[in-house]
Amino acid sequence: MNELVFEQPLNEKVRNYLRLEHLARQLDTHLQEDHQHRCFFPLFSLCELAERCDFRSELLKDVDRLLLQLNTSSAAAALSNQPPDFFLEQLSLAREQLQTPERPGVQLKQNRFIATVRQKLNLNGACCNFDLPQLHFWLAKPWAERQQEYQQWVEHFQCLLHPISLLMQLTRASSEYREAVAHAGFYHDSSPQALSLVRVKLNANDGCYPTISGHRNRFAIHFVQFEQQKHSQQTVKFLLATCS
Amino acid sequence: MNELVFEQPLNEKVRNYLRLEHLARQLDTHLQEDHQHRCFFPLFSLCELAERCDFRSELLKDVDRLLLQLNTSSAAAALSNQPPDFFLEQLSLAREQLQTPERPGVQLKQNRFIATVRQKLNLNGACCNFDLPQLHFWLAKPWAERQQEYQQWVEHFQCLLHPISLLMQLTRASSEYREAVAHAGFYHDSSPQALSLVRVKLNANDGCYPTISGHRNRFAIHFVQFEQQKHSQQTVKFLLATCS
Repeated sequence: MNELVFEQPLNEKVRNYLRLEHLARQLDTHLQEDHQHRCFFPLFSLCELAERCDFRSELLKDVDRLLLQLNTSSAAAALSNQPPDFFLEQLSLAREQLQTPERPGVQLKQNRFIATVRQKLNLNGACCNFDLPQLHFWLAKPWAERQQEYQQWVEHFQCLLHPISLLMQLTRASSEYREAVAHAGFYHDSSPQALSLVRVKLNANDGCYPTISGHRNRFAIHFVQFEQQKHSQQTVKFLLATCS
Repeated sequence: MNELVFEQPLNEKVRNYLRLEHLARQLDTHLQEDHQHRCFFPLFSLCELAERCDFRSELLKDVDRLLLQLNTSSAAAALSNQPPDFFLEQLSLAREQLQTPERPGVQLKQNRFIATVRQKLNLNGACCNFDLPQLHFWLAKPWAERQQEYQQWVEHFQCLLHPISLLMQLTRASSEYREAVAHAGFYHDSSPQALSLVRVKLNANDGCYPTISGHRNRFAIHFVQFEQQKHSQQTVKFLLATCS
């Protein structure tokens, strides 16, 4: 069975966290393997998000809140197959790292190579070697050398990415999947307590994907047939988790 | 010896051809191996270039001109280690393919999946699965299936990409490398006949890259030290080819 998980944030904060977590996974892929100039796309997206918003104070509040709920995090550790003190230790570490004097990513702005590549790479069909001869030169360096430099650039953002990874693990561990059925491709639900994330797990063989909308206490799911790209009229069985 | 080739177009037409050729190479990489959502970046760049300009009539003129210069193309075939009739046959084939009634890429505009992904993928840090659940679904398909679909999308542009590859091979074969020396990191030259492409080959161990500027009959090359990101004051030996 080919299971697919779709997640929908129900507030702006978790929406940002999911974006940053998604970028963190991409950076990780580019650290494992040489993807040439493509490694810059998630790095520059991260630069842009970090410039647009300083996530540190909000993250610090979340980390502090979770450190107070020690029981919750040890229960979550059990759910995520981690040792009981795992989240406690990791959150304390994240708390320290978050107290940096400099806004993450500011160091990359001072790197002339990075700044030039960032400015030109998004032009259409750019990164031809006449647009960016310095990139062409950099890409000819041995992968081990580039990997090390990339690691250093990514490192600047770890103080954000590490706590976000923990927070999202804890958010997901706050709710287990339950069975649900969408009649004529539609499902909706509400909750007395504020929700932050809705998760839908379904079988890819059903040939459809969910489009989820919602805010705080309520959400709706429409299933869409991929091949026809239109709303499904079928009964769709799926697994649902609503995380607070 | 780690040799690097840098190319600079000296007119707008060759500039476009180089961009398209560069995208063609990227599409090819994505056809060989699964690069997940990253395969869409060069595809959408190509869509955008093809929408901005219909290259067919200009390409057709170039193909016709080259078909008249049969001797040139057989000499070029020798230079590129191809059979004598290679370019003649390939150019005739390209000529046929170029006479399509529809502008290349127009078919992709009618594909709703492609249209939605194209619209959203360039947003920052997008392609989270809540932005594009249909992309998340598509990426879960087996690679062989995605590869085949990708091949079909790319196919729409082959009538442009194939002749451009031939034209660029012939342009490059029109001139051989000669030795040249830049004093204090600077070199300039002119030519009585119009040039379309300047090529610089140098040893990556020299630690510098060229920034080339020019137009038609004249060009200048500044060598830049990569590590310092500033103009080199050294004597740089390199290989130079000026193609008409």
